[in-house]
Amino acid sequence: MKDLKFLCEYLEIECEKNIAIKALNSLSLASNEELSFALKNNDELANTKAAAVLVNKALKDYVPKNSLAIVVDDAKLAFAKLSKLFAKELLSNAKNAIVGKNCNIMPNVHLGSNSVIGDECIIMSGAFVGDNVKIGNKCIIYPNVVIYNDTKIGNNCIFHANSVIGSDGFGYASSIKGHTKIYHNGFVEIEDNVEIGSCVCIDRAVFDKTLIKSGSKIDNLVQIGHNCEIGNNCIIVSQTGLAGSSKLGSFVIMGGQSATSGHLSIKDGCIIAARGGVSKSLTESKTYGGFPIMEQKEWLRMQAKLKRITSDES
Amino acid sequence: MKDLKFLCEYLEIECEKNIAIKALNSLSLASNEELSFALKNNDELANTKAAAVLVNKALKDYVPKNSLAIVVDDAKLAFAKLSKLFAKELLSNAKNAIVGKNCNIMPNVHLGSNSVIGDECIIMSGAFVGDNVKIGNKCIIYPNVVIYNDTKIGNNCIFHANSVIGSDGFGYASSIKGHTKIYHNGFVEIEDNVEIGSCVCIDRAVFDKTLIKSGSKIDNLVQIGHNCEIGNNCIIVSQTGLAGSSKLGSFVIMGGQSATSGHLSIKDGCIIAARGGVSKSLTESKTYGGFPIMEQKEWLRMQAKLKRITSDES
Amino acid sequence: MKDLKFLCEYLEIECEKNIAIKALNSLSLASNEELSFALKNNDELANTKAAAVLVNKALKDYVPKNSLAIVVDDAKLAFAKLSKLFAKELLSNAKNAIVGKNCNIMPNVHLGSNSVIGDECIIMSGAFVGDNVKIGNKCIIYPNVVIYNDTKIGNNCIFHANSVIGSDGFGYASSIKGHTKIYHNGFVEIEDNVEIGSCVCIDRAVFDKTLIKSGSKIDNLVQIGHNCEIGNNCIIVSQTGLAGSSKLGSFVIMGGQSATSGHLSIKDGCIIAARGGVSKSLTESKTYGGFPIMEQKEWLRMQAKLKRITSDES
Repeated sequence: MKDLKFLCEYLEIECEKNIAIKALNSLSLASNEELSFALKNNDELANTKAAAVLVNKALKDYVPKNSLAIVVDDAKLAFAKLSKLFAKELLSNAKNAIVGKNCNIMPNVHLGSNSVIGDECIIMSGAFVGDNVKIGNKCIIYPNVVIYNDTKIGNNCIFHANSVIGSDGFGYASSIKGHTKIYHNGFVEIEDNVEIGSCVCIDRAVFDKTLIKSGSKIDNLVQIGHNCEIGNNCIIVSQTGLAGSSKLGSFVIMGGQSATSGHLSIKDGCIIAARGGVSKSLTESKTYGGFPIMEQKEWLRMQAKLKRITSDES
Repeated sequence: MKDLKFLCEYLEIECEKNIAIKALNSLSLASNEELSFALKNNDELANTKAAAVLVNKALKDYVPKNSLAIVVDDAKLAFAKLSKLFAKELLSNAKNAIVGKNCNIMPNVHLGSNSVIGDECIIMSGAFVGDNVKIGNKCIIYPNVVIYNDTKIGNNCIFHANSVIGSDGFGYASSIKGHTKIYHNGFVEIEDNVEIGSCVCIDRAVFDKTLIKSGSKIDNLVQIGHNCEIGNNCIIVSQTGLAGSSKLGSFVIMGGQSATSGHLSIKDGCIIAARGGVSKSLTESKTYGGFPIMEQKEWLRMQAKLKRITSDES
Repeated sequence: MKDLKFLCEYLEIECEKNIAIKALNSLSLASNEELSFALKNNDELANTKAAAVLVNKALKDYVPKNSLAIVVDDAKLAFAKLSKLFAKELLSNAKNAIVGKNCNIMPNVHLGSNSVIGDECIIMSGAFVGDNVKIGNKCIIYPNVVIYNDTKIGNNCIFHANSVIGSDGFGYASSIKGHTKIYHNGFVEIEDNVEIGSCVCIDRAVFDKTLIKSGSKIDNLVQIGHNCEIGNNCIIVSQTGLAGSSKLGSFVIMGGQSATSGHLSIKDGCIIAARGGVSKSLTESKTYGGFPIMEQKEWLRMQAKLKRITSDES
């Protein structure tokens, strides 16, 4: 808990009213003990339950009655500055990790304080398990995997070597003075039966969580941005990149070197061909390809047509 | 050795005849002590020497006389299930590793049981060498490189930091219930004078081996899928992805961010321009680019033509 | 210092005159105690201050009077061979590292000889800091990061897990016999307030340095080639690849999976859309996209036109 008065002083602004702030959160998730920020007038702002909302002057009157509007010059920058104050300590000295039965924890493994490892897990040399991590039963963590603080992992998961789970998302408040880090106080949750390849990066959420649902399989060198949600039984082939807040349904297949731009959703059962660049939400369970994205059969037709045009003229 | 009777019981099917099965293998590589599987009627099935072949009902009569047809609902799924039974233990406690003369093995290096390191090798902190690994003379293994069990490495090789050699290939038997892991019981072999960049991933084979031949050089963040074969003196530039069973001849150059789809071959001396997406076998030693792949000069003509068309109309 | 006579003997060529050679360097950076090489007749050759220059016969007369022309069959190959002689020892046993006040150096961290760590740094388990590395104050080095010898890092930097700073650039002298390694005797310099994601690879320079200037932020799985220069406050999104000697101005944004071909420059404030492939220098502060690179608005028009053409004909 931090006093709003203290937060306002930190931002060097006036504070109308002092209330206790438990955490930062998005407009839609914030409880009435949490602080949020708004960049435009939309439904999320109108419906927020946040105790207070950072806004610029023009948005002040759109903050709902139940919330306190806190007027700043740059709401995203103010939010970024405050996010640092709510970041947990990187390293704590709380309780020792708890390890289940019949585990094989090899030498040179770090188990962070307060972490809980289930039964029959293998954690191999050089793996790093941060603080407050929870790992289920029968997981295999290969050497040098790094699992950041607060990650939650289900049962029967396999993480191949040198993957990184839960590093900070790539988010900054930018101005002509530079880029102010937005501390990512969310986490990563990985459900059961997920297999993750080598050198995969899965970023933690700004708020709440980045989520990989049961049965999904992720190949080597894949990037999964902050706040993504991967549905059940998805297949993500090597070198694919999912930008922040991409939401995949169940049984989605992303071909090699494919990608999404962020803040979009892909319906259950969609197949994205290799190199497909998903530039908008996909609402029908079809096969897509190309960039900007289109149906794969349309892309194939386009390539054939292009070949014809080029040879005509040469 | 496992009894076929036991394997059939595991799959919950009838067993006509009990024979001893030494390993799983592909149709073309299987010996008469090995079990294979077929998904279609082709020459590989007709010519297999496998002791037995998993097939669906429709393929039963195409299994050659010398092999036993084992009828299952889904041959790939049955194979995936059995692959787990043939997987070796991840960690063994057999003989200690043998290290050659004048090596520098830094602290916090793991040397797996039964591994053999040649003379004058440098293996730096945090590197992990699995069980049954063989490394030649004068190799440099930079920190935190992970070399999985059964990998074979020649002389004078350099592996830069955080690369992963021999992790499981990305292969599953998929059904509407989800994806069943195909255990990759093959390995990776790297010949002499190979240099591998940082954060490179080279997957082990399903059967037999993924092979990197002498003198090839691989840049950072490259993905090499299971069962690929890279010829002598190839150059693979950063962020390239080779899908499974790609076969490159000698002196092939793959430009940055290029790729192959799997199960194809590229002739000696081919040059793939940056971002080229090799979508079919290339049988002439030329320079290629674009996606789908074409001759690079054709791609350049296509881009020029496209530019003209676009400006005409605007 | 090495005698030119010795170097010539190593190359199995005659030596006209014996002088002391301090290092290898590029034509433009070489001092009159250094050796360089030239592949063509250009201003850099005409203006070099190098003590001696490796050239083939045809270039001999273009070497300026103040420099000694050393005629070889293949100047790049000769240079590559000599680069090995000038490479420093990979591991030394000089002075212990010096660690500043209030640092948290976790177990299993390697601090190389002669390295200097500033105050209030956190260096987490499994991180490797090579010899002669300099790290400023208040830096956070996450687990299993590998920092090669001679790297210089400023204040307030954050390096996420499993990134690799300073590995050898991808450079070889190639002939029909194979590829001869060019030893990269330069280094990486990273200024203040730089944040680097997970599994990022930044290669050391051949000569001089690869430079990341203050305030720049680099996302996961990015490749930065040898001798690149990234200006102040750049944003490099995930899976981007910068080929060698790319020079970015200030506040350049590179979208996800974008790339540059090498030896080009991008002006301050340029924005490269996701997947943009920068194939030439960009001299105006605009938004670009596509491959070959063009203005993003032109690329969008081209895609719209292509869609129209394809649907017309189908």
